[in-house]
Amino acid sequence: MEAARPLDALNAARNKRVIVELKNGKQYVGVLKAFDIHVNVVLENAEERNDGEVARKLGTVFLRGDAIILISPE
Amino acid sequence: MEAARPLDALNAARNKRVIVELKNGKQYVGVLKAFDIHVNVVLENAEERNDGEVARKLGTVFLRGDAIILISPE
Amino acid sequence: MEAARPLDALNAARNKRVIVELKNGKQYVGVLKAFDIHVNVVLENAEERNDGEVARKLGTVFLRGDAIILISPE
Amino acid sequence: MEAARPLDALNAARNKRVIVELKNGKQYVGVLKAFDIHVNVVLENAEERNDGEVARKLGTVFLRGDAIILISPE
Amino acid sequence: MEAARPLDALNAARNKRVIVELKNGKQYVGVLKAFDIHVNVVLENAEERNDGEVARKLGTVFLRGDAIILISPE
Amino acid sequence: MEAARPLDALNAARNKRVIVELKNGKQYVGVLKAFDIHVNVVLENAEERNDGEVARKLGTVFLRGDAIILISPE
Amino acid sequence: MEAARPLDALNAARNKRVIVELKNGKQYVGVLKAFDIHVNVVLENAEERNDGEVARKLGTVFLRGDAIILISPE
Repeated sequence: MEAARPLDALNAARNKRVIVELKNGKQYVGVLKAFDIHVNVVLENAEERNDGEVARKLGTVFLRGDAIILISPE
Repeated sequence: MEAARPLDALNAARNKRVIVELKNGKQYVGVLKAFDIHVNVVLENAEERNDGEVARKLGTVFLRGDAIILISPE
Repeated sequence: MEAARPLDALNAARNKRVIVELKNGKQYVGVLKAFDIHVNVVLENAEERNDGEVARKLGTVFLRGDAIILISPE
Repeated sequence: MEAARPLDALNAARNKRVIVELKNGKQYVGVLKAFDIHVNVVLENAEERNDGEVARKLGTVFLRGDAIILISPE
Repeated sequence: MEAARPLDALNAARNKRVIVELKNGKQYVGVLKAFDIHVNVVLENAEERNDGEVARKLGTVFLRGDAIILISPE
Repeated sequence: MEAARPLDALNAARNKRVIVELKNGKQYVGVLKAFDIHVNVVLENAEERNDGEVARKLGTVFLRGDAIILISPE
Repeated sequence: MEAARPLDALNAARNKRVIVELKNGKQYVGVLKAFDIHVNVVLENAEERNDGEVARKLGTVFLRGDAIILISPE
C-alpha cells in the first residue's frame, strides 16, 4: 500500500485481505474487490467481528464510504 | 456481486434478496429493485428485522442512501 | 412502485398514501404530493404517529430529505 | 400548499403562518417570508415553542436549512 | 430583515446586533459584520451566553455555518 | 478582523494568536498560519486547552474545518 | 509545516511521523505517506493509541478524512 494519493493505497490493497472499521464501532474483514472516490467499498469472503471474534459470515458486502473510518491490510 | 466498482456489485445483486443495515441499527431484507449513486435503494417484498426476527412486513420500501451502512446478498 | 431508479419508485407512489420515517424515530403518514432529488417530500392529509398511534394531525407537511430514512406505501 | 415539487409547496405557504421543527426538537412558529433551495428559512413574528407553550418571542428569525426537519402551515 | 431570500434577511441585519444559536446549545450575541452562502458568520463585540447570562467576552468571532441553527436580531 | 466576507476576517487574523473551538468541546490556541474555504486551519505554537488550562503542547497542528465551531483572536 | 494553505502544511509533513486524531477519540501515529483534498490520509508503520499507550500495531492504514479532527507532527 505504497502511494502518493490515498486512493492509490486502496488500489494497492485490491484483492488483498483488509480490515474495515466503521463509525458505529463494527469491524469487517474480507478481500477488497472494489472501491470508489466516496470510499464505498466491496469486500468478498467478509465477516463481521466484535473484539476480534467472528460475529457472522457475510460473503460479499457493500459498505457505504460515509460509514467508514479506517481501512488497513490485515 | 463480482465488481471493479462498488456500484457494479450492487448491479449484480439486482433482483436478488439482500440485507440492508442502517445507521440506526435496523435491518431490512428484500429484493433489490433499484439503487443510484447516492446509494438510495428500493427493496420489494421487504421486511424489517430486529435481531433476526421479522418486526414488520413493508412490501416496497425506499431507503435513503445517507442512512445506509451495509448491503449484502442474504 | 416498480422502478429502475429509486426516484422512479417514489414517482409511482405519487398521490398514494405513504409512511415516511425520520432519523429521530418519528413517523408521518400522508398522501405523497411532491419529492425532489434530495428526497425532500411533501405529504397531504398527514398525521404524525408514535408506535402506530396518531400523535397529531398536520394537514400539509414538508419533510426535509436529510431527515428521512425510509418511505413506503402504507 | 399544492405542488409538483417540494419547494413549490413552500412557495404556496409564503406569507402564511407555519410551524418549523428542528433536529434538536425545538419548534418555531411564524410567518414564512423567505426560503431557498437549502431550505434555509426566514420567519417573521416568530416565537419558539416547547410542547405547545410559547417559550420566547423572537420577531424575525433565520433558521438554517440543515437544522430543519419539518415545515407545516399551522 | 424584510426579504425574498433568506440571505437578504441576513444582509438587512448587517451592522446590527444579532443572537446566533449553535447546534451545541451555545448562544453568541454581537454585531453582524459578515456572512456567506454557507452561513459562516462574523460577529464583533461578541459575547457567549448561557441561559441569558454572559459567559465570556470574545470581541471578534468567526462562527462556522455548519454549527449554526438560528440567527435573529436581538 | 474587519471584513465584508467571513474569510476576510480570518485573513485579518493571519499570523495572530487565535482560539479555535471544536464540536467535541476542545480548544486549541496558536498562531493562525493558514486556512481555506472549508475552514481547514493550521496553527503554529499550538496548545490544547481544557477549561483554560494547557492540556498539551502540539507545535504545528492542522484542524479539519468540519470539526470547527468557532475561531476568535485571543 | 510552514504554509499559506492548510494542505501545504500536510505536504510539508509528508514522510514524517504525525499523530492523527479522530472524531471518535482514537489516535493514530505513523508516517504520513499520502493525503488528498478530502483530508483522506495514509499512514505507514502506524499504531493506534489510547491515552498515549499503544493499543495495536496496524502497519499501513487509510483514514477517511470525514472522521479526522486533527493532524500534527509528533
